[in-house]
Amino acid sequence: MKVKAAVAHKAGAPLTIETVDLEGPRAGEVLVELKATGVCHTDEFTLSGADPEGLFPAILGHEGAGVVVDVGPGVSTLKKGDHVIPLYTPECRQCEYCLNPKTNLCQAIRSTQGQGLMPDGSSRFSLDGKPVLHYMGTSTFAQYTVVPEIALAKIREDAPFDKVCYIGCGVTTGIGAVIFTAKVEVGAKVVVFGLGGIGLNVIQGARLAGADRIVGVDLNPGREAMARKFGMTHFVNPKDVEGDLVPYLVSLTKGGADYTFECIGNVQVMRQALECAHKGWGTSVIIGVAPAGAEISTRPFQLVTGRNWRGSAFGGARGRSDVPKIVDWYMEGKIDIDSLITHTMPLEKINDAFDLMHRGESIRSVVVY
Amino acid sequence: MKVKAAVAHKAGAPLTIETVDLEGPRAGEVLVELKATGVCHTDEFTLSGADPEGLFPAILGHEGAGVVVDVGPGVSTLKKGDHVIPLYTPECRQCEYCLNPKTNLCQAIRSTQGQGLMPDGSSRFSLDGKPVLHYMGTSTFAQYTVVPEIALAKIREDAPFDKVCYIGCGVTTGIGAVIFTAKVEVGAKVVVFGLGGIGLNVIQGARLAGADRIVGVDLNPGREAMARKFGMTHFVNPKDVEGDLVPYLVSLTKGGADYTFECIGNVQVMRQALECAHKGWGTSVIIGVAPAGAEISTRPFQLVTGRNWRGSAFGGARGRSDVPKIVDWYMEGKIDIDSLITHTMPLEKINDAFDLMHRGESIRSVVVY
Repeated sequence: MKVKAAVAHKAGAPLTIETVDLEGPRAGEVLVELKATGVCHTDEFTLSGADPEGLFPAILGHEGAGVVVDVGPGVSTLKKGDHVIPLYTPECRQCEYCLNPKTNLCQAIRSTQGQGLMPDGSSRFSLDGKPVLHYMGTSTFAQYTVVPEIALAKIREDAPFDKVCYIGCGVTTGIGAVIFTAKVEVGAKVVVFGLGGIGLNVIQGARLAGADRIVGVDLNPGREAMARKFGMTHFVNPKDVEGDLVPYLVSLTKGGADYTFECIGNVQVMRQALECAHKGWGTSVIIGVAPAGAEISTRPFQLVTGRNWRGSAFGGARGRSDVPKIVDWYMEGKIDIDSLITHTMPLEKINDAFDLMHRGESIRSVVVY
Repeated sequence: MKVKAAVAHKAGAPLTIETVDLEGPRAGEVLVELKATGVCHTDEFTLSGADPEGLFPAILGHEGAGVVVDVGPGVSTLKKGDHVIPLYTPECRQCEYCLNPKTNLCQAIRSTQGQGLMPDGSSRFSLDGKPVLHYMGTSTFAQYTVVPEIALAKIREDAPFDKVCYIGCGVTTGIGAVIFTAKVEVGAKVVVFGLGGIGLNVIQGARLAGADRIVGVDLNPGREAMARKFGMTHFVNPKDVEGDLVPYLVSLTKGGADYTFECIGNVQVMRQALECAHKGWGTSVIIGVAPAGAEISTRPFQLVTGRNWRGSAFGGARGRSDVPKIVDWYMEGKIDIDSLITHTMPLEKINDAFDLMHRGESIRSVVVY
């Protein structure tokens, strides 16, 4: 079939809107009509050329929501008309990872997904007879896409696509890091570094988990108002702190935070996040993606005295199981997504979403098909 | 009273055997007659001058066992004749740390202990009228010592002092890191870096916990036989590995170890220990004490893909609660201590213990009073 899509032909160039060919779903695959997709920093990271694993030409996008249009042979858990969110972290429920309760990193289709291909090693997209690669197994910057059954979360039908698409990445990454990775308890003290989209979702996750003190740290004072709306109790601008930030935060949290979250991707901030965690039991969770080759460091004494350093990918969520729950939380008003979606646009204007991101004007832009 | 003790007058010099004055126990304190004490690398670290927090003159030693001779006012949990192991990590059962199940790092007397003083800010030891400092709150290199009640574990009376003294530090540090910090499960795959006294105790802790595969890593082939006796299933000498050690260990553990332990104090090895932990769920525990100022590093991707970096002090054990259990395990034959105590000597020969350690000839030397 012919499908309108935004194609990334090469690193560093804008996307171009084109009509590409899309093959129907093969065994275990599902054809999805996308209704909306968020534009995320990870798309920008790849498009910019900074991602050493980026491949071109490809159809980017990994934060979508849509409707099942057709299913390939053997698909048993989805049918035409189902509402779905594509998952860049699938959940096969069969592999060693899915069967280990400590991780969400299903490896069932990892190698082909990393090569921009479907599990059988081929692409469903092509342009002028030449293959165009998939991206993160989802390729949501197209009207229609083909996704493996194990990489689709079935969601309730009354959820608005143009909001819940954000659960496909940013919302789940932030809220999940609090709930599934760190398992923040009622009454905990939390520090969040970076109050962009991920940081705001960490904040509302911490509020949802019943944290007592939620400290937000950002160099941009313009972030304070929104963060307070999402549950932040204390705002710290490092520019306004005399002396070192770490002892200031330790003091503000009366001995250190029970949980800290790095939502920027800055290895120096990752160190600060670890070191302001409470001696004895503080856990620091890295969410931000650091530049290629960057390294984190600290004195081992920080760990020997009881701090715990870990990371979170896709919020520790198992997509098919957890994404529908997060959609429920949104529909029940437990979490706010609407305020975070600052811009919407048609596919033809998708490059505007990248411009808004570069200028720091958007929290999240959503393309509506 | 007059007490024979090995006094550390200054960094870098041998201990000298002298008769010092010891005051009786004040409120909350207990006078202990030591029957045996191990000589540990941490004593050596301080005596050498490498410990930036080392204070002199002091009576070192922190791995003792003995008998209560007298108690000060208000002591309610111990009486004359009780057999005890002094604890450099106390357990007051009252402080914020003791009341948090995630940590064993009781802070009740931390600041005075760090200054070489009893909780009231004074020393019980003196020589020619001048104070001699306590060390780690225990000072077991003396015939008698005064210790706070909260820093004494009461143990069974049939346990031999010259063996269970080792539970005061090394045994608990190694076995506890497996059982209390990492909580290794039956069937786990474990890699242990460094097969000295701590590493051997990690190995027998892993065996006790039912680990399937216990890989030991050491540059010294002479360590293999003893480690196998303690439960090691695979020995790796990095000198014999072609190429990088980390992928070799990942392959040997079929994807990475569930738990790894660094028992050396080498920050490069700490990185290897983290990076050979299993993607998704591997936990790496730092036990070794690194040189002052040394830092650990890795790419944050190692954590974001599910590895967990933490540390362990005194094996995560709560001394008054857990040390008596470990004494039981020894008495029941669940763990071996006898094989690790390679040398014994009277107090007068204590400097020989340091010489044996420097030459790598001992696993543990024990001074018997």
